[in-house]
Amino acid sequence: MKQEQQVKHEIRPWSLVEKSFQPGEYCLNATLFSLGNGYIGLRGAFEEGYDPEPFSDGCYLNGVYASEPISYGESAYGYARNNQRMLTVPDGKSIHIWIDGERFSIAEGELINYERHLDMSAGITQRKLTWRSPHGKTIELIVQRIVSLSEKHLFVLKLEITPLDFDGEVRLQSCLDGDLAQADRSDDPRLASPIDQGDIEWLENTADGDYLALPLSVKSSSFYVSSAALHHCESNVEYSSANLHSEDCVSTEYRFDARRNTPIRLTKYVAYFAEQNAAPIEASQLRSYLQRCASRSYTEHAESQRVEMQKFWEESDIQVDGNDALQQGIRFNLFHLFQSLGRDGRTNIAAKGLSGDGYDGHYFWDTEIYVLPFFLYTQPQLARGLLEYRHSILDAARSRARELAIHKGALFPWRTIGGEECSAYYPAGTAQYHINADIAYAVRHYSRVTGDTEFLRDKGAEVVIEGARMWMEIGHFNPRRNNQFCINEVTGPDEYTALVDNNFYTNLMARAHLEYAAEVFQWLQSFDPEACRILSKRIQLAPEEPASWARAAETMYLPYDQSLGIHPQDDGFLDKPVWGFAETPEEKYPLLLHYHPLVIYRHQVCKQADVVLGLLLQSSEFSAAQKRRDFDFYEPLTTHDSTLSACIHSIIASEVGYPDKALRYFQQVARMDLDNHHNNTQHGIHTACMGGTWMCMVQGFAGMRLHGNELNFNPYVPEGMDGYRFRLQFRGRTLALDIDRSKASYTLVSGEPISLHHGEHVVLLSTPGQGQTFQMALMEEVS
Amino acid sequence: MKQEQQVKHEIRPWSLVEKSFQPGEYCLNATLFSLGNGYIGLRGAFEEGYDPEPFSDGCYLNGVYASEPISYGESAYGYARNNQRMLTVPDGKSIHIWIDGERFSIAEGELINYERHLDMSAGITQRKLTWRSPHGKTIELIVQRIVSLSEKHLFVLKLEITPLDFDGEVRLQSCLDGDLAQADRSDDPRLASPIDQGDIEWLENTADGDYLALPLSVKSSSFYVSSAALHHCESNVEYSSANLHSEDCVSTEYRFDARRNTPIRLTKYVAYFAEQNAAPIEASQLRSYLQRCASRSYTEHAESQRVEMQKFWEESDIQVDGNDALQQGIRFNLFHLFQSLGRDGRTNIAAKGLSGDGYDGHYFWDTEIYVLPFFLYTQPQLARGLLEYRHSILDAARSRARELAIHKGALFPWRTIGGEECSAYYPAGTAQYHINADIAYAVRHYSRVTGDTEFLRDKGAEVVIEGARMWMEIGHFNPRRNNQFCINEVTGPDEYTALVDNNFYTNLMARAHLEYAAEVFQWLQSFDPEACRILSKRIQLAPEEPASWARAAETMYLPYDQSLGIHPQDDGFLDKPVWGFAETPEEKYPLLLHYHPLVIYRHQVCKQADVVLGLLLQSSEFSAAQKRRDFDFYEPLTTHDSTLSACIHSIIASEVGYPDKALRYFQQVARMDLDNHHNNTQHGIHTACMGGTWMCMVQGFAGMRLHGNELNFNPYVPEGMDGYRFRLQFRGRTLALDIDRSKASYTLVSGEPISLHHGEHVVLLSTPGQGQTFQMALMEEVS
Repeated sequence: MKQEQQVKHEIRPWSLVEKSFQPGEYCLNATLFSLGNGYIGLRGAFEEGYDPEPFSDGCYLNGVYASEPISYGESAYGYARNNQRMLTVPDGKSIHIWIDGERFSIAEGELINYERHLDMSAGITQRKLTWRSPHGKTIELIVQRIVSLSEKHLFVLKLEITPLDFDGEVRLQSCLDGDLAQADRSDDPRLASPIDQGDIEWLENTADGDYLALPLSVKSSSFYVSSAALHHCESNVEYSSANLHSEDCVSTEYRFDARRNTPIRLTKYVAYFAEQNAAPIEASQLRSYLQRCASRSYTEHAESQRVEMQKFWEESDIQVDGNDALQQGIRFNLFHLFQSLGRDGRTNIAAKGLSGDGYDGHYFWDTEIYVLPFFLYTQPQLARGLLEYRHSILDAARSRARELAIHKGALFPWRTIGGEECSAYYPAGTAQYHINADIAYAVRHYSRVTGDTEFLRDKGAEVVIEGARMWMEIGHFNPRRNNQFCINEVTGPDEYTALVDNNFYTNLMARAHLEYAAEVFQWLQSFDPEACRILSKRIQLAPEEPASWARAAETMYLPYDQSLGIHPQDDGFLDKPVWGFAETPEEKYPLLLHYHPLVIYRHQVCKQADVVLGLLLQSSEFSAAQKRRDFDFYEPLTTHDSTLSACIHSIIASEVGYPDKALRYFQQVARMDLDNHHNNTQHGIHTACMGGTWMCMVQGFAGMRLHGNELNFNPYVPEGMDGYRFRLQFRGRTLALDIDRSKASYTLVSGEPISLHHGEHVVLLSTPGQGQTFQMALMEEVS
Repeated sequence: MKQEQQVKHEIRPWSLVEKSFQPGEYCLNATLFSLGNGYIGLRGAFEEGYDPEPFSDGCYLNGVYASEPISYGESAYGYARNNQRMLTVPDGKSIHIWIDGERFSIAEGELINYERHLDMSAGITQRKLTWRSPHGKTIELIVQRIVSLSEKHLFVLKLEITPLDFDGEVRLQSCLDGDLAQADRSDDPRLASPIDQGDIEWLENTADGDYLALPLSVKSSSFYVSSAALHHCESNVEYSSANLHSEDCVSTEYRFDARRNTPIRLTKYVAYFAEQNAAPIEASQLRSYLQRCASRSYTEHAESQRVEMQKFWEESDIQVDGNDALQQGIRFNLFHLFQSLGRDGRTNIAAKGLSGDGYDGHYFWDTEIYVLPFFLYTQPQLARGLLEYRHSILDAARSRARELAIHKGALFPWRTIGGEECSAYYPAGTAQYHINADIAYAVRHYSRVTGDTEFLRDKGAEVVIEGARMWMEIGHFNPRRNNQFCINEVTGPDEYTALVDNNFYTNLMARAHLEYAAEVFQWLQSFDPEACRILSKRIQLAPEEPASWARAAETMYLPYDQSLGIHPQDDGFLDKPVWGFAETPEEKYPLLLHYHPLVIYRHQVCKQADVVLGLLLQSSEFSAAQKRRDFDFYEPLTTHDSTLSACIHSIIASEVGYPDKALRYFQQVARMDLDNHHNNTQHGIHTACMGGTWMCMVQGFAGMRLHGNELNFNPYVPEGMDGYRFRLQFRGRTLALDIDRSKASYTLVSGEPISLHHGEHVVLLSTPGQGQTFQMALMEEVS
């Protein structure tokens, strides 16, 4: 576990406040203060620009990308052909400001006051500052932003500028700026690749008074992206306006005869629409959309925003007593998840959300394993969208399987936006076949938690079954191991080990997947025989296949070492020497940035939870003692160089009786981005870790496990807090849990009666509004 | 084993003849008719050009390359940074021909006669043809080429053109042409990468009457390359000449008032010089060099060439009775080895020699394991140069080791020209650590065969010791395996399996390497204590290191499977399913062009000899019965998709009693390029396979093994031939062997008395010129 880092912002339970401007943290704060609505993502870069930092101007649309050929020094058959890179769309927040001819920039002049505020209860950021120009003219500036949660295509920005000690000209040049340049690629595989400017075709733009439109098309991916802006000026002083435009930038320039202490207000409504392989929105439609949006004032939009956020918090908040630092971290993380999540069934949630273009904006297994649980138990309709997305890319996954010589079924891409495999390093990409099982796990999880048979019939079954067929081709019944089903040459979750045989996690999850596929097929046959017949025909399912899945599941080989009493991560893991942790200085972490893969791979060292993750996801398969032995073995070998690791370790630490460890891991998880623990939040937030935050609280401290269709809890309150409470959605019911040091209370807020388990006790909740309370036994740390 | 392919050229023991022009085989023949002298390589492309085929114009200088950054879709720490790509230097053979204004090209008009001839006894190619132009004018053209074996920097070309049915203008435009374009890169990792034209700086050129000079510098690699040409015109008709030049091309154009049946003769002397990080040859020096060369006629040069070739054949030929097809193949292969080999201790022999730019002209382990034995036993001074080259790149190998977190010693590059690791795919590149052991093996082999203690003291010891230290860091004493020394995460010779633990070949060769390193250190201590002290100090050798090498060697883990009685290729090999050979159609070979590495790697399938190669190189470690069991196991799993495979299988087949198999493999090996068995000879010859040809004859059929310092033979004559004879150099002696169906004769041609082994018999050769003859027992094929 890394050292605690300094808290960078004031501790406040509902907000994030930047009290003074730190030039070195401009990019970090551009991430932290980013806003999104699951479609539009807007980094917290300044409207007026900030010169020294190029990497900050991102505005993104979920699912919208450029495609670029992947270049290999040495290529080979079946390598992923193209990278899909999340597009930076024209910058709609850009407003350049001149004060009597002096360009306003925080990099110049004197900053007298500065405060930026993210209000998580309202979904709004506000920046307020007092600045004196090099020539001594002082202004107050207030900018507020909303990326609308009720209008997918809209963000609204309100700028108010007040001369404090002069009368003179204030000039605002408000742009749609298409200069889409990004930072250069480095050796760090986690950063985004640069965009080829030649790939963008600028279409006919408009700069007509208060209205701007800058459409473009992306040649490589056949996207049309329409951006437009409409301004509303509110001023007690005289002003004029003029338009400017070039090929890739349109703007309206306002000149005000500004007067001391008289505020000038400009509201900018910005809209984005995108279509792939289809006609773009018509210019007139776009304009009238914005006119309709602009018929409501900023204040009205802000009020809608607050209502949306309140709905969200009501269902999704986790309240923590006695620890505002954790409270702030939890809310920040849940807030960003909500901002990042694609909601339309054709988009997903990127590793960095919509807050930065690290990992090129790709979707990974992070979705199913780390992010989905939060939504599943709080906003199940949003969780469904994530799984519908997987169904939408099934054809691409089938094609990919064929490229890998898999004749039946589908292989989901390790990383993608539109469905095509984008991993340019297959040993830690395509070789992570467990993605198929992770998705199936999520479908099963979703189905159990929601009881949504319609989804399972129409989409889920196909995703599960097509994915399961892949295992039958990459695995085999090994005569040397008693005909157990073995899976060779795979990479598990731990990316510090690659291309191994019988990765424990992979085999464990494949077993569950194959078992579930057989179960789903049987269920579909009886639930809707016609749907089953149509599906079987479409995917040419042979009658003997489901039985073969069940047989592979039954005989699945899981590595186990008798002498150590633990599950080896793979066939060869225990035979490697342990990494020289004692000789590795702090600055050599993360290892991937300081050691060749060959060096890392030949040691016992884990980037992240692998076996330990399996213990959580298939919790009922293992005894508590087994889990503790595995945890005790792997934890010292794990660097947590991935942000997907600490949360899982926290949860299992909770389960096996290490509450202090659980808390220490959780402290890192909850404030991963707020405190920039991995020193790369400037490239975007870590959505998986944010999802892990919720998991730590609910599955870790509250000890929730779903066994079959039954919820089990085993809650405790770790040292760092006095108690916590949260709500859950479960099969049409709303449940509320309230845990403190002395008791755990379970309440049925709404819905049918239900019975739960609190440790060994059965909790029967029969009447909405009523609950049951249990005395808490204190959890003691082992040794 | 692949099907036999058709013989493409007439069978002649000393030559290669192309009897008619086949457009589709232009590139193939450009390889086969290429000429070289170990420094200059000249593909057999036509002087006048041949339009449809761009990939044919190569002229190369051994060791001269451009450096280009390797582009990775996803990069990581320690990846090879730059590719060194063998440079295509300005084309000096280019002579465009016009007949009364009609451009001569075989692609147009009518080809009445055509014959091309490579005379391997003389080291000369000749092309002779009769051609009628579209307008009906007929010429005879004869072109001869020599790449001089006595003048490293020179090639000479003589062109004779005779109008057969007209008087008119013949125009010859003779160029130094710097258009260095190459074919585009494809998915085939064996092809060359394209050259960046911006990397070439054209220096001030000269076109002065008969003299041309076109110098350039390569920015990326700091090479200066000077090319120059001097013409000698011999004609009984009137002619005039003029010069043309552009930035990257200079030429002299000759206009002849040609007369029917009166030959026009032009001799072109072309010289290349290259320097890296040093001043280029002075212009005046270059010119006088060529003037000196041109003072000798083409015929005089041809005579010198023949003398050089005779010297070569006298020591190096293998004569085969009763099989001209094999005889031709053997000679062709030995001839090309001689043409390809760098002779200056700073260059080596590329995988494709100097006949094409496949594999970018890189040097591999092919040198030490496949090519060196031929030179070692026939031209030992040339073998020494190959090992001196390795010493010359030791500093680069030390740097590379540091990049791989290896603190002491050196890691030789898997592929390189100048010493820097150029492998852009580390699983089948840098992970092939066995390169270090292969080089040490070659040093030991060289030392034993030559008794050259000076080389061992001055260079060999350092190469061996620095290489051995690497094993101590990548391997470890494994407590789970009785503290045997294990080596994880390596790739052996077989590239259809990668990143495995305890590759048999690697461990076996590492054992020999470590043992030898300890032995060499001890030897050096007693042979030259001062040299030992200086070396130890320079490389900071700790006193305990040599003992640790010996201990690692003693305890080296070698995989062995008791139930099968064979050596598994690595820890996981036997647990994989066997490749579906029955379901793989012929056109899906080589597998690497039709299957993703993940598919190949998870099966029991070998690209090439791996365990089987170990059986040859460490022959005395294994019983004949063991060798047969291993051969029987691996042969059916091996596709021989690498040309490094069939020769080794032929040798072991000879040893374990499968003479028919040995012959069948040998037939493919001996005519690999002549018959283009792998369908890629158009990109260059296969030098390793050519070296393997000699090994098949001497180590396979004649059964030669070196045990300690003693030569052992176990000869037989396979069905396809009546007998064979060859000479060997061994510790200052020349030996001659003559084997036929009834007897084997051993003769000491020159040098001190020596005893050898013929099977169980000791052969004592005490008087030069005299020999001993043994009755041969016929070898029977098993089952």
